[in-house]
Amino acid sequence: MSDRNKNSNDDSIMKKPMTRRDVLRLAGTGGLGLLLGGGAIGGLFTAENNRKTEAAQAPAAEDHIPFYGKHQAGIITPAQNFICFAAFDVTGSGSHSLQKLFRTWTAAAAAMAEGKQVGEESNNHNLPPVDTGESVGLNPSRLTITFGAGTSLFDDRFGLSSKRPPSFKELPAFNGEQLEPQWCGGDIGVQVCADDMQVAFHAVRNLARMARGTAVLRWVQEGFQRSAQADPSGGTPRNLLGFKDGTGNPAVTSGQDMDKVVWAQGSDGAAWMGGGSYMAVRRIRMRIEIWDRSSLKDQEDTFGRYRASGAPLGSKNEFDPVDLNAKDEKGNPHIPADSHVALARGDGSLQMLRRSYSYSGGIDLKTGQLDAGLLFISYQRDLIRQFVAMQQKLAKSDRLNEYILHVGSAVFACFPGASKGGYIGDTLF
Amino acid sequence: MSDRNKNSNDDSIMKKPMTRRDVLRLAGTGGLGLLLGGGAIGGLFTAENNRKTEAAQAPAAEDHIPFYGKHQAGIITPAQNFICFAAFDVTGSGSHSLQKLFRTWTAAAAAMAEGKQVGEESNNHNLPPVDTGESVGLNPSRLTITFGAGTSLFDDRFGLSSKRPPSFKELPAFNGEQLEPQWCGGDIGVQVCADDMQVAFHAVRNLARMARGTAVLRWVQEGFQRSAQADPSGGTPRNLLGFKDGTGNPAVTSGQDMDKVVWAQGSDGAAWMGGGSYMAVRRIRMRIEIWDRSSLKDQEDTFGRYRASGAPLGSKNEFDPVDLNAKDEKGNPHIPADSHVALARGDGSLQMLRRSYSYSGGIDLKTGQLDAGLLFISYQRDLIRQFVAMQQKLAKSDRLNEYILHVGSAVFACFPGASKGGYIGDTLF
Repeated sequence: MSDRNKNSNDDSIMKKPMTRRDVLRLAGTGGLGLLLGGGAIGGLFTAENNRKTEAAQAPAAEDHIPFYGKHQAGIITPAQNFICFAAFDVTGSGSHSLQKLFRTWTAAAAAMAEGKQVGEESNNHNLPPVDTGESVGLNPSRLTITFGAGTSLFDDRFGLSSKRPPSFKELPAFNGEQLEPQWCGGDIGVQVCADDMQVAFHAVRNLARMARGTAVLRWVQEGFQRSAQADPSGGTPRNLLGFKDGTGNPAVTSGQDMDKVVWAQGSDGAAWMGGGSYMAVRRIRMRIEIWDRSSLKDQEDTFGRYRASGAPLGSKNEFDPVDLNAKDEKGNPHIPADSHVALARGDGSLQMLRRSYSYSGGIDLKTGQLDAGLLFISYQRDLIRQFVAMQQKLAKSDRLNEYILHVGSAVFACFPGASKGGYIGDTLF
Repeated sequence: MSDRNKNSNDDSIMKKPMTRRDVLRLAGTGGLGLLLGGGAIGGLFTAENNRKTEAAQAPAAEDHIPFYGKHQAGIITPAQNFICFAAFDVTGSGSHSLQKLFRTWTAAAAAMAEGKQVGEESNNHNLPPVDTGESVGLNPSRLTITFGAGTSLFDDRFGLSSKRPPSFKELPAFNGEQLEPQWCGGDIGVQVCADDMQVAFHAVRNLARMARGTAVLRWVQEGFQRSAQADPSGGTPRNLLGFKDGTGNPAVTSGQDMDKVVWAQGSDGAAWMGGGSYMAVRRIRMRIEIWDRSSLKDQEDTFGRYRASGAPLGSKNEFDPVDLNAKDEKGNPHIPADSHVALARGDGSLQMLRRSYSYSGGIDLKTGQLDAGLLFISYQRDLIRQFVAMQQKLAKSDRLNEYILHVGSAVFACFPGASKGGYIGDTLF
């Protein structure tokens, strides 16, 4: 019960929520029937043998990523298998209801991160259930919920216009993008990641439900990566173009690097964002069918890496340094100057932390082609100096542009983490 | 095993349901491998033991479900975590190119089931790669690929009209459905399931690529279930309405039951379908927001089961028999006559094997509500006597209709399995 005790001083809406683990244990002792109305619940776990009950009692540590902390979880957290990204628009005005929403969301998010339901069910069956129930019995699955404010939250509706960080504004138009309004913007962005899709969906659905009357969903995009079970080597995952994606990410283990690249500092111009991070999200459609007709050489020249190994062209191993001056026996550069890696790497001064997922959304009704690609997400200390500078370079010259199309875009100022007793966004309001 | 024994004399639609407990025991004794094809299934549950790392280092056998066999895999195979369902339309005419396509698909599907790429890459880098590459390094993830012929394949384009099984025709219109053409039909249906979404996507994408010039994608729907990692208890998964779904499925371990319920017999009117099965697919949108506002009592009366335990109303345990005559102290039936379980169970004579997945497809642009629900899939020996009879009853009276909407529909005659040297569909052509 230590999880519960930790929360006992917490002003959250859900006091002493029961973990799924607790439920199992109570079921074992007969206590659950007492609490939740008899056999109706008691039977939930009767199909389980003791071995499994034991296992269920100890999934804890590795499956649970703490919600509270200096920074929000889900940023430097190693990527989970799934994402369910939700952008919301606030329907009311004034900051009071907004603060209340963030308080409610904070308590619910902290509970879900521990594998608990979003609140305690009453004994009154004539009320709707507090939690929608589809994650009952599932472990926390490394759930993280990361909240950010869109640029529109700093207009005049909530009295926040003076709080907008100087470098946080709408992105400029980029060469070649074809943005569709239904995949753009949002007053609030919520990145939900988990190792189980049902757990991620459950979180978005319950956050949306709690927001009723205050905010509505603007867009939702699900995404996936190959799972750790499918790839026990734990190597860099491949994107849907078949290439490893994320090789050049900075090491999240270096606090110094993260302070330089990812975490906004209080001295950067908005004190309330100290310990937060700016997120860029781009829905990048891949022209799968065109890519699949191009030669392996074209594909490798496009990325500047070998498909099989992920090594830079002319090198042997994935993590070999990218040497843009290396030449083949004819004196031609191994890595084309307009390849993705050449442009993205540049002189090495532009860095960001990428945390992208693949998406597959059936077929495009207009063309009959697969609507699949990358839900690109990056975190950085400064959007203009990092993401915008990089994307302007890529949009202008990247060979990859022939095969991709940016159709969605949003930026969010992701708050610093909350401590117990506080709530996400409390430094802003 | 008391749960099962209680049910053994019960004429309910679920005879001898197999819990994972049963499966575990069978696996432990080697019984399951014997029943269901050897090591392929025997290792299904290794992730449930405490030696996860060991299991991960030796993924081979347990992750591989053989493609060739008397029946196609993916029908009585225990459900994997993900689905990527693809319906194709054939663009040419004449049966020659169609046969060639099935030969090509068979070889590719058998290779992918073993975790191999769809073909050997050449040394000529000026050719497009044979395989699109995004599953390189991933294990087979229990991939199954199940092929079926739509009713339209038996029109006059391919000389197959005389081969149409007598009971295999377009579904009649059902009360309340609002079918959208983009989610309906298809000359060929391909159910791809795997424990890794990237593996499933890879299969659909490569099958579509191979079909170029012969067939094009008509619709694609991805889906998920809670993963075994998230729910080590292995209980019946919950649908997005928060209720357990699949409790009443027949036991796939009973060859006799499967012959009665699932497998078409050569004597049923189409000899080429002997050992095959008829699939019904329905894309069922859930009215999530309306459901979430209804009381727990309404929800439980709608399903006729308790949400927490899955037990029939008035009973204690999930697998307790459904007694439609049981009454409460006031003499009212515990289970409403128009509840989902009451109608679905009926007199127990209507059975089918359900193999459904949840889907989440962002939001509906028209309403701003979540576009989420169930990709219902069932297999049966006879569509009219089983699926149609059941669905007519449900469409007319099911209390659940208030909360769901059928928007997609298709039926496919899934071929018998192929043996090595043969190909899927070879009994038809």
